[in-house]
Amino acid sequence: MNAPTRLEASPAEKAKVLLDALPYIQRFNGKTIVIKYGGHAMVDDDLQESFARDIVLLKYTGMNPVVVHGGGPQIGNMLDKLGIQSSFVRGMRVTDAATMEVVEMVLVGQVNKAIVRMINQHGGRAVGLSGKDGSLLRARRMHEAGTAEDIGLVGVVEKVDAGVIDTLDRGGYIPVIAPIGVDAEGNTYNINADLVAAHVAAALKAEKLVLLTDVDGIRGAEGTVLPSIDAKAARVLIERDVISGGMIPKVECCLDALAGGVAKTHIVDGRVQHALLLEIFTSEGVGTQVVGRA
Amino acid sequence: MNAPTRLEASPAEKAKVLLDALPYIQRFNGKTIVIKYGGHAMVDDDLQESFARDIVLLKYTGMNPVVVHGGGPQIGNMLDKLGIQSSFVRGMRVTDAATMEVVEMVLVGQVNKAIVRMINQHGGRAVGLSGKDGSLLRARRMHEAGTAEDIGLVGVVEKVDAGVIDTLDRGGYIPVIAPIGVDAEGNTYNINADLVAAHVAAALKAEKLVLLTDVDGIRGAEGTVLPSIDAKAARVLIERDVISGGMIPKVECCLDALAGGVAKTHIVDGRVQHALLLEIFTSEGVGTQVVGRA
Amino acid sequence: MNAPTRLEASPAEKAKVLLDALPYIQRFNGKTIVIKYGGHAMVDDDLQESFARDIVLLKYTGMNPVVVHGGGPQIGNMLDKLGIQSSFVRGMRVTDAATMEVVEMVLVGQVNKAIVRMINQHGGRAVGLSGKDGSLLRARRMHEAGTAEDIGLVGVVEKVDAGVIDTLDRGGYIPVIAPIGVDAEGNTYNINADLVAAHVAAALKAEKLVLLTDVDGIRGAEGTVLPSIDAKAARVLIERDVISGGMIPKVECCLDALAGGVAKTHIVDGRVQHALLLEIFTSEGVGTQVVGRA
Amino acid sequence: MNAPTRLEASPAEKAKVLLDALPYIQRFNGKTIVIKYGGHAMVDDDLQESFARDIVLLKYTGMNPVVVHGGGPQIGNMLDKLGIQSSFVRGMRVTDAATMEVVEMVLVGQVNKAIVRMINQHGGRAVGLSGKDGSLLRARRMHEAGTAEDIGLVGVVEKVDAGVIDTLDRGGYIPVIAPIGVDAEGNTYNINADLVAAHVAAALKAEKLVLLTDVDGIRGAEGTVLPSIDAKAARVLIERDVISGGMIPKVECCLDALAGGVAKTHIVDGRVQHALLLEIFTSEGVGTQVVGRA
Amino acid sequence: MNAPTRLEASPAEKAKVLLDALPYIQRFNGKTIVIKYGGHAMVDDDLQESFARDIVLLKYTGMNPVVVHGGGPQIGNMLDKLGIQSSFVRGMRVTDAATMEVVEMVLVGQVNKAIVRMINQHGGRAVGLSGKDGSLLRARRMHEAGTAEDIGLVGVVEKVDAGVIDTLDRGGYIPVIAPIGVDAEGNTYNINADLVAAHVAAALKAEKLVLLTDVDGIRGAEGTVLPSIDAKAARVLIERDVISGGMIPKVECCLDALAGGVAKTHIVDGRVQHALLLEIFTSEGVGTQVVGRA
Amino acid sequence: MNAPTRLEASPAEKAKVLLDALPYIQRFNGKTIVIKYGGHAMVDDDLQESFARDIVLLKYTGMNPVVVHGGGPQIGNMLDKLGIQSSFVRGMRVTDAATMEVVEMVLVGQVNKAIVRMINQHGGRAVGLSGKDGSLLRARRMHEAGTAEDIGLVGVVEKVDAGVIDTLDRGGYIPVIAPIGVDAEGNTYNINADLVAAHVAAALKAEKLVLLTDVDGIRGAEGTVLPSIDAKAARVLIERDVISGGMIPKVECCLDALAGGVAKTHIVDGRVQHALLLEIFTSEGVGTQVVGRA
Repeated sequence: MNAPTRLEASPAEKAKVLLDALPYIQRFNGKTIVIKYGGHAMVDDDLQESFARDIVLLKYTGMNPVVVHGGGPQIGNMLDKLGIQSSFVRGMRVTDAATMEVVEMVLVGQVNKAIVRMINQHGGRAVGLSGKDGSLLRARRMHEAGTAEDIGLVGVVEKVDAGVIDTLDRGGYIPVIAPIGVDAEGNTYNINADLVAAHVAAALKAEKLVLLTDVDGIRGAEGTVLPSIDAKAARVLIERDVISGGMIPKVECCLDALAGGVAKTHIVDGRVQHALLLEIFTSEGVGTQVVGRA
Repeated sequence: MNAPTRLEASPAEKAKVLLDALPYIQRFNGKTIVIKYGGHAMVDDDLQESFARDIVLLKYTGMNPVVVHGGGPQIGNMLDKLGIQSSFVRGMRVTDAATMEVVEMVLVGQVNKAIVRMINQHGGRAVGLSGKDGSLLRARRMHEAGTAEDIGLVGVVEKVDAGVIDTLDRGGYIPVIAPIGVDAEGNTYNINADLVAAHVAAALKAEKLVLLTDVDGIRGAEGTVLPSIDAKAARVLIERDVISGGMIPKVECCLDALAGGVAKTHIVDGRVQHALLLEIFTSEGVGTQVVGRA
Repeated sequence: MNAPTRLEASPAEKAKVLLDALPYIQRFNGKTIVIKYGGHAMVDDDLQESFARDIVLLKYTGMNPVVVHGGGPQIGNMLDKLGIQSSFVRGMRVTDAATMEVVEMVLVGQVNKAIVRMINQHGGRAVGLSGKDGSLLRARRMHEAGTAEDIGLVGVVEKVDAGVIDTLDRGGYIPVIAPIGVDAEGNTYNINADLVAAHVAAALKAEKLVLLTDVDGIRGAEGTVLPSIDAKAARVLIERDVISGGMIPKVECCLDALAGGVAKTHIVDGRVQHALLLEIFTSEGVGTQVVGRA
Repeated sequence: MNAPTRLEASPAEKAKVLLDALPYIQRFNGKTIVIKYGGHAMVDDDLQESFARDIVLLKYTGMNPVVVHGGGPQIGNMLDKLGIQSSFVRGMRVTDAATMEVVEMVLVGQVNKAIVRMINQHGGRAVGLSGKDGSLLRARRMHEAGTAEDIGLVGVVEKVDAGVIDTLDRGGYIPVIAPIGVDAEGNTYNINADLVAAHVAAALKAEKLVLLTDVDGIRGAEGTVLPSIDAKAARVLIERDVISGGMIPKVECCLDALAGGVAKTHIVDGRVQHALLLEIFTSEGVGTQVVGRA
Repeated sequence: MNAPTRLEASPAEKAKVLLDALPYIQRFNGKTIVIKYGGHAMVDDDLQESFARDIVLLKYTGMNPVVVHGGGPQIGNMLDKLGIQSSFVRGMRVTDAATMEVVEMVLVGQVNKAIVRMINQHGGRAVGLSGKDGSLLRARRMHEAGTAEDIGLVGVVEKVDAGVIDTLDRGGYIPVIAPIGVDAEGNTYNINADLVAAHVAAALKAEKLVLLTDVDGIRGAEGTVLPSIDAKAARVLIERDVISGGMIPKVECCLDALAGGVAKTHIVDGRVQHALLLEIFTSEGVGTQVVGRA
Repeated sequence: MNAPTRLEASPAEKAKVLLDALPYIQRFNGKTIVIKYGGHAMVDDDLQESFARDIVLLKYTGMNPVVVHGGGPQIGNMLDKLGIQSSFVRGMRVTDAATMEVVEMVLVGQVNKAIVRMINQHGGRAVGLSGKDGSLLRARRMHEAGTAEDIGLVGVVEKVDAGVIDTLDRGGYIPVIAPIGVDAEGNTYNINADLVAAHVAAALKAEKLVLLTDVDGIRGAEGTVLPSIDAKAARVLIERDVISGGMIPKVECCLDALAGGVAKTHIVDGRVQHALLLEIFTSEGVGTQVVGRA
């Protein structure tokens, strides 16, 4: 007997799975879970639906999921259509005013709305937010925050005003956040979605920050995925170049969130169907958890 | 490959089971489910634990379970120890004052407390109630209600004052009710637990009344268990003696509850592990549902 | 002495203006005012700022303003940039899937955000919504609703679920709505903003619906602007072709809103600075009010 | 003229009594009064009724009475009927599993219910609780708490979770508590009712702890009843053996309660009709008050 | 043994009096009692104190007393001092503007304040109100209401806006009302206090209206005080001149209050110490109750 | 063109005035403003109406105005009519019992009621209070507070119990306070209204204390009115006799209020129409603000 032919678990197995989820449901009851949604999970149709259903399940079993999304590929696609060319510095798009306008339009008007619609189609009650709504994300120019080159309207988070999230939460809604910030003068900034998720999680004193990524977790010196790592050890692995490249900013987001009061952070393989659900409701490891204070 | 060697569902299967439960969780969110707990499910250790875990899962996934329990075997056992003998009329124990004292003591002080303890051991927050607490169950002597013989302190429900259930519900507690009633003069009555469950469900305008029994459901004229039957058809089956014996009062409790405004009623096989959970969270049929207005 | 040289009213004049506003502030205290924002008022920089300040003043003097905006010129502009061509039927853009995507992106991701930012810059607390957020606007295809030609993804409002507006209102936020609807299958529709404003006003039982337009009001048979007209008279003027062309759908939105329970409707000249403020807080007529039940 | 012939106070006397109660009603308005109910007051019919009426009067004049009861004689009686024999160590019953079962059954299912019924008959709204309900009383084995002999399932209070009392209080109910505790493993313990009353009073930061006893108060060195004694003096009297025997644990309960934040404690003669009422509402001394921090 | 020598009831008598009050405390819990305070009870020092203590007792035992007072003698006294002379028509003072000013000043600034102070001295929390405060009493000129002669600024109650009473009640305060009304133009009127009490009682759907008077009740045809009379019988007695003179308007106030939804009305002898307390808390009759709908 | 002929501001001017008020409306939203109302503003008919309308505007634009009033001229007038003569010590009336009775009667029963009526006539919902109502102002004899001469029943504020103000505020009412205090024995005191306003403002942690006076502000050494002065500078001007006479106690009230936690204090020329409105809603200076901690 091989897996594909088995369409349905037996009643006893079903009961077991549901009851195995109970301790997790109890533990996370009323807790906030911030999820960075991006990468492959956001472009594959099946994974999109899988994600939407996971979010609705979290909400209905008593947690408060808050979604922060990216949208790199969709932005690139629209810039191409409009014939706007970009250069990149250390992986970040140099963002002039014309580019910024497209970034905002695509993230807020296209990607965010598709996620909201998908969650609502599966019985959730999502509301999309950009950092402008309710002045949620006060930003400033990354260059002014001390980075070497000026890559234009790329921002860092200066302050999170979580009032609108609290308001939507009291109304039973699921907030879905596009990573757009605004400064005191009203200028618009593109902010890295992992960074926004980390700041929002810290502002909400979230129970968990989950980063859905396109890797299977943090690999240790032996090259195997680590199920769990503490903050200090993570810093050591970065120093020793074991953690490197695009994984560094993700791990740093986790460390920032932990420092900001988030209880646990997770780097999870978003290419696996229902990775989020398995992470929250089961003992299955789907990636690496980063815990403790640095 | 045989079942015992399979210890664990695959991650994909787990996810499927959890997500298959989602529509039920959504549908029953904030709804009241009254469960009559009795028979084999109450005396078998494994089934007891299975029941307690099911109740806690219901509570944590957003429903308001209310438990009503019986206790016939335990009562008989204690009467034996005390050398008190009983006669029975149409299956009901003739209840004099000495017997009534034992009935109340066993139901309230032994059976009820064991259920409360079991639920709390599994992470729930149960509070036991007899019909005297908060004047929950106003009763009167069955004989006065019009039955032929006087079988003593056996009562029928005259009025349910659900105030204490509402109060406990607002506090997040799970009420567990022993079927003891009290009349205006303060006399104590033993009431059939199915009957109490039906009246409590009607008073609470419950979404569901679930009677856990020791049969596998209502059997039709062909002898097979009917997954669903409507109220009118049930009356016909009673008239035609297809439904007979001890099943008649159970079906009549269902019909009373439906008439009193309960949305659906279920006669479920309590000998099956997690019968309650399977009934609520899955498409598995574990008995017969009785629906519609008669 | 000519007006431009007079920079400041005298203290006595200031006091008079403020006190003259008091009866209006008292009358509209706690009332909902739905404003359709569009046309010239939305593209002229000074008028934009004037509008934002008016909205904030409404909020701070105790009313609940709800903004619904259009965005025709911005959509046309982006379609041009992307080389997507449109045909028009009776003034409405035939909307295929590619066009719809641009419409949503521009309305939600660009126009809506600019309005939200502008209001927040002036001290308000605005939150942008599309009809997808909180399933605010359930739509269906206009063609299915009975119109002759099928012009694609152009919708009519089937249902308003005002829950998210109520929630934001309780939090002290100003809702700003992009006229995008969604049907039961998740298809996206472009809806006329006047129509959305009328339906939202009716759903909220608003005190007023104010349509900011690029005309100075409804002109009667003599060609002069009518300060006020009742619903029946308006229908007569439509039948007699005195009200004609693009004014017809605007007047019909007013009549629909009145029929839906809105107390008063106004067609106001949005090209006048602070037209909204003057309409609400003063006895100045800035357009035509349409009142009464048809 | 002798007392029995005087059936009724004059109107002026009635007014005086009621008004003399006013300062006490004002002082204890909204305050919690924990009453240990036991001894003769619980077995004499007139005293039972007197107690029930006093409790209802307390509730209706704005206080929050909480009752904790014992039940020694009723337990002994039932053990006799069942032929279960007990040995005693320092006045405490050695409690094996079979005995514990009877203790719980009698206290919770018989004594508690009789008190609840009696209060409700007199217009109160009582709800019975055992320490299992809402996990009210977390206990552990007295022997593990450091006593010399192991007398079985006799417990001490480890923690009071007063949530269920608060919930019932908000609903306007009077909690009546049977002194049964439960440990983390679910084992049941018999706990001294005075001890439970003292811990509950401390957990609730009660205004008063009143122990109804079968003596007329604490006697000083001269043998007369002391109307009031402070905590330090009480300790001295214990050391000097002036306070001795069964009075020692009662006084120690008072001292514990005072140390835990209770404002005043009282050892009151429960054999006097309406001793509770006289203690609370009049200047009559009916026993000894123990006050101050030790 | 004569009364004066008995200084104190025995403990048993005290308990009896308090418990005899319990049924009344239960019955009137949370109910509103409107008391017209006037006549001898308002000018005798002992009776004043007796009244204040009675009111505080009512409040602390869970009722909501609302006091309406007169002040004829104090007004006459001040008019004399100021040399303002009055004529009377059918027992009512013809009230010109100068007189009205004195009436208001004395009732609101002297009599009302003395009552408020007295209640607060005895531990209550009273707040004085005139009919102007919170627009409590909208009046109109009695002459316009249809009476033959115009006796000036004597008014009748047109509307009671009980908002301020509800607000004070939620804050735990005792409202004390001076019978001054105001019309739409801002003119001030003197209104009969019995009439105000009746209208306020009706507006609050009070449980009781108690008129404290200087007679011992309504006397029947035989000349003895009737303990109770129903509305229809009262009308007959008025027609037959058995009820006559100044008693007629008092009885008519009772009938109006009953017609307006007040449960019971009482004409009580205010010259008896604690007449109010005896009426509410005991079975003693201190005057006549008027009940039923006419 | 001269001012009187200009009846109306142009629409543009109106809009400007309203929008110029917006920052002040935003800043003072939900804040408490205590206003001492007295002097010329209280006796001139136009100024009375102007004051009433200003207060209503404050309330409807989201602030919580609290009025404290004096009444010297009205008191003098009534004392004259009654032939009661007064002597004065340092500007304060020596107040015997007979005088005190008149003071209370006039302030509470005449002046207070006229203000309440005037505000209510203009659409506000005012409720008058004396310091006796809800025990708002606990006073003691000024002489006992340490002053040289005993001038009788002139008091100082010992304690403000702001409960009744909070209660009225929650109900949406505007409190209007007569400066009468009461001591623990129930004696009545006349207190300076500026002093009461300062204490009430401190107790409420008001945003502003505004003293309406009959001067145009504090004059500096050069004799010109100072628009703003800080607390330390004010003390210096008092020491140097630049601030002298009746201005000293007013400035000291401001300093006391600042010391008690009030954010800003203002001495404003009450002879100017709408001085209060201009002070709160415009940049016009109408007197002197005193700020900072001394």
